[in-house]
Amino acid sequence: MEFTVKQIAMLLGGEVDGDDSLVINQLAKIEEGKPGCISFLSNPKYEPHLYTTQASAVIVDRSFTPKMAVPAALIFVDNSYSAFTRLLEEYHQRIAYKRAGIEQPSHLGDDSEVGDQIYRGAFSYIGRNCRIGHNVKIYPQAYIGDNVRIGDNTIIHSGVKILDNSVIGNYCTLHPNVVIGSEGFGFAPQTDGSFKAIPQLGNVILEDFVSIGANTTIDCATMGSTVIRQGAKLDNLIMIAHNVEIGKNTVIAAQTGVSGSTKIGDNCIIGGQVGFAGHLTIANRTKVGAQSGVGKSIKEEGTSLNGSPAFELNDHFRSLAVFRKLPQLEKRIHHVEKHLNNQEQHLNHK
Amino acid sequence: MEFTVKQIAMLLGGEVDGDDSLVINQLAKIEEGKPGCISFLSNPKYEPHLYTTQASAVIVDRSFTPKMAVPAALIFVDNSYSAFTRLLEEYHQRIAYKRAGIEQPSHLGDDSEVGDQIYRGAFSYIGRNCRIGHNVKIYPQAYIGDNVRIGDNTIIHSGVKILDNSVIGNYCTLHPNVVIGSEGFGFAPQTDGSFKAIPQLGNVILEDFVSIGANTTIDCATMGSTVIRQGAKLDNLIMIAHNVEIGKNTVIAAQTGVSGSTKIGDNCIIGGQVGFAGHLTIANRTKVGAQSGVGKSIKEEGTSLNGSPAFELNDHFRSLAVFRKLPQLEKRIHHVEKHLNNQEQHLNHK
Amino acid sequence: MEFTVKQIAMLLGGEVDGDDSLVINQLAKIEEGKPGCISFLSNPKYEPHLYTTQASAVIVDRSFTPKMAVPAALIFVDNSYSAFTRLLEEYHQRIAYKRAGIEQPSHLGDDSEVGDQIYRGAFSYIGRNCRIGHNVKIYPQAYIGDNVRIGDNTIIHSGVKILDNSVIGNYCTLHPNVVIGSEGFGFAPQTDGSFKAIPQLGNVILEDFVSIGANTTIDCATMGSTVIRQGAKLDNLIMIAHNVEIGKNTVIAAQTGVSGSTKIGDNCIIGGQVGFAGHLTIANRTKVGAQSGVGKSIKEEGTSLNGSPAFELNDHFRSLAVFRKLPQLEKRIHHVEKHLNNQEQHLNHK
Repeated sequence: MEFTVKQIAMLLGGEVDGDDSLVINQLAKIEEGKPGCISFLSNPKYEPHLYTTQASAVIVDRSFTPKMAVPAALIFVDNSYSAFTRLLEEYHQRIAYKRAGIEQPSHLGDDSEVGDQIYRGAFSYIGRNCRIGHNVKIYPQAYIGDNVRIGDNTIIHSGVKILDNSVIGNYCTLHPNVVIGSEGFGFAPQTDGSFKAIPQLGNVILEDFVSIGANTTIDCATMGSTVIRQGAKLDNLIMIAHNVEIGKNTVIAAQTGVSGSTKIGDNCIIGGQVGFAGHLTIANRTKVGAQSGVGKSIKEEGTSLNGSPAFELNDHFRSLAVFRKLPQLEKRIHHVEKHLNNQEQHLNHK
Repeated sequence: MEFTVKQIAMLLGGEVDGDDSLVINQLAKIEEGKPGCISFLSNPKYEPHLYTTQASAVIVDRSFTPKMAVPAALIFVDNSYSAFTRLLEEYHQRIAYKRAGIEQPSHLGDDSEVGDQIYRGAFSYIGRNCRIGHNVKIYPQAYIGDNVRIGDNTIIHSGVKILDNSVIGNYCTLHPNVVIGSEGFGFAPQTDGSFKAIPQLGNVILEDFVSIGANTTIDCATMGSTVIRQGAKLDNLIMIAHNVEIGKNTVIAAQTGVSGSTKIGDNCIIGGQVGFAGHLTIANRTKVGAQSGVGKSIKEEGTSLNGSPAFELNDHFRSLAVFRKLPQLEKRIHHVEKHLNNQEQHLNHK
Repeated sequence: MEFTVKQIAMLLGGEVDGDDSLVINQLAKIEEGKPGCISFLSNPKYEPHLYTTQASAVIVDRSFTPKMAVPAALIFVDNSYSAFTRLLEEYHQRIAYKRAGIEQPSHLGDDSEVGDQIYRGAFSYIGRNCRIGHNVKIYPQAYIGDNVRIGDNTIIHSGVKILDNSVIGNYCTLHPNVVIGSEGFGFAPQTDGSFKAIPQLGNVILEDFVSIGANTTIDCATMGSTVIRQGAKLDNLIMIAHNVEIGKNTVIAAQTGVSGSTKIGDNCIIGGQVGFAGHLTIANRTKVGAQSGVGKSIKEEGTSLNGSPAFELNDHFRSLAVFRKLPQLEKRIHHVEKHLNNQEQHLNHK
């Protein structure tokens, strides 16, 4: 797949400064650019690479003025980052091999229906009484239990396990080995010290445009539903416990865990390896730093939290700054005490 | 499946206050109750919902007296929580589709034997020389290696991988994508800076009534066995390293990691995202707060720990309380120093 | 498989003190030794067990002199630990059942080629246009996408998912349910608050002798490659984000996460549950303590870090020591203030 710089500029609605007949056949980062590559400059930190890159062309912002000669052809656009992202998408659509059809052996249970243009990979399993939409891709070795609903244009990668009664929306992506609808961790203590599993009768609902990262697990609700709302994006190895709700367009980084019945609001940004206690309510647009431990509900929208246990970000940073010099602090106290003692003795002697 | 309030009261040995002819067809939380639902009130925190719930019936403790009129029929029992749990179980048993029989294709290796009433799902794999008990459910795409022993009434969910020589007890549940018996992380450093894998010849033993959450991994022992004792319950995404032992009825929340050769006692309660160093011995009934890092053995039974590194819970809380006001503390020290300095000068001038 | 003590001593180039005709049929830890077992003593901490062990033979260092009578036969060698490791390897090679051949059903896509002596387990899947080397073991239910390259002598365990365009070296081991090449977590924020996935066009490269633990996930690069260099060893449940590089012979313990574009050097030792922020560069031979959070690049080789946020190990230990006595520190400040106040009043009264 090859294009000239001119063709790409037209696609992006940009203007070329330099040789627009150069042929482009690859995308690359500006610091890794080679002849035939197109790259982009958005973050000013990378500007020095612009003057040395071997890439044939670089997309830049219209507002940008080079400080010296640039070896590559420049394409000026309104927003270089989104223009490059658009190129990535075009490229991805053209190169990606489109899986389609039904590979054998694969299993389709009684009373289950699948839509048009479906891909069902070898060794994939669909249980009973499922309703699967159009243009759904079910990769090899994926498992779909009984009574599952899946919308249109959703991708179920290899090794994903979707348990009974789950409901998955349209345009969702479930990455490899994701588990949806496993039994929640609920046990009733018995008088002899043992525990008895509490039946988990609820399900999991993923609304539209939800993305779930590899090896993430989402438990079903005890009753009712564990819900991941529209547009939420979850990274890899995350744990979502029973009856949790994750709000619209909330983004959660890898290895975070959310305990039972906690409700996280819309448009939140949660770092990696964060832990949430159970039964909390977290306001919209809350931001939580990586490795934080959130033990209390957050009522005010737009709060930034950090630390374990987490409190307001700036306060936490201030405490951390002093934590680092605690040994000196202790010495200062010791010094003051000694001083005071000397003074005391001095005064007493007077 | 429908029952009247009267029928449910009889099942639970309770007395009805209200219309006992109402028809119940669903279970719900008290705050989500709708007509046709039965709910329960155990935690006093939820009492306000009792006076507004749309549920048709609510199970309450015999010791409870409503403070005002209740729209729902009440069923009085000794323990509302366990009564409701019992209802959940009844309900679960009646609705759950019972998997049975052998779906094809599935693999059964040479010299392996399986008991009666087994379910072997499509694309499940059983290696050589295995002994699998009665009424075991092996879901699609589960893998069982060679020389594996599995007791009666155990459930192996989809995608579970049980490696060679593992021993699984009766009434265990292994949730989807659990890995049992993977090679322990043991490497001998070589003189050139590289590492050579130390063969891991041991196995994993799960005693009876053990539950292992989705995507949790339990490594086999270098020699001997990694052991999960009777009734222990492990949540999702937990890491159990080689030669670890987890005691009877110990409960571990999600994403916790236990390093090699550590022995955790009976009836411990371990929070989520906790880390244990290797070669520790943790006394019975130890409680560890979420995100703690346990670096030392615990000798006294019933100890409560918190923090990373973890120490006694109340001491940790006291240190945390001061941590939050460290910036003020620093100011106070600064103030004292200044003050002292002024005094000094004042005294010297006298 | 049985050997006499004499035969084992010859294999290891050691000398026997005791009955060299005893028969050995098992390996065991010194504290768990029984008749017929051989064990070893390397760590002096375990020396007391030497005088009480029931093992038939114990391997010890040539430099070691027992302090009292030893019931077992002793085999003296240069390095008891490596000698024992060698025995483990011998034992492992003799007992391990060698998987070989092609089990059916299994899937091999168009234009894919596999080498000699391959094992392809039942329900394993190889996509299109793959090149798989000699003596590769692909266990049941493993998935290999399109355009994947795998070197010789590599083991792909059950449930491993290797996505399109990944490149795996020679002598690698991928433990069960590992995910290689899943889409990186990259989303472009849209003006309406939603996020759009940025196509991830890169791949993952694992060089030779790499080991990846169960349920670990390694995302593909946005462009270019996520790279795990020769001899690196990753434990279970680790998250490696897009465009990360892990250096030669670097060892990472379980449940650690590395954010996008971070480069970790050679011969680093990273504890469990550590988090790395994105876009960092970590020098060779860096050591990071368990549960640390690394937020800054490390320039000096051989640095030891600890804490969240992480700083120099010894400094962190000193701060932690004071953290534990913060409540006393606060009291001391309070005491000083009071004292100073009294003095003040005293002086004013003079």
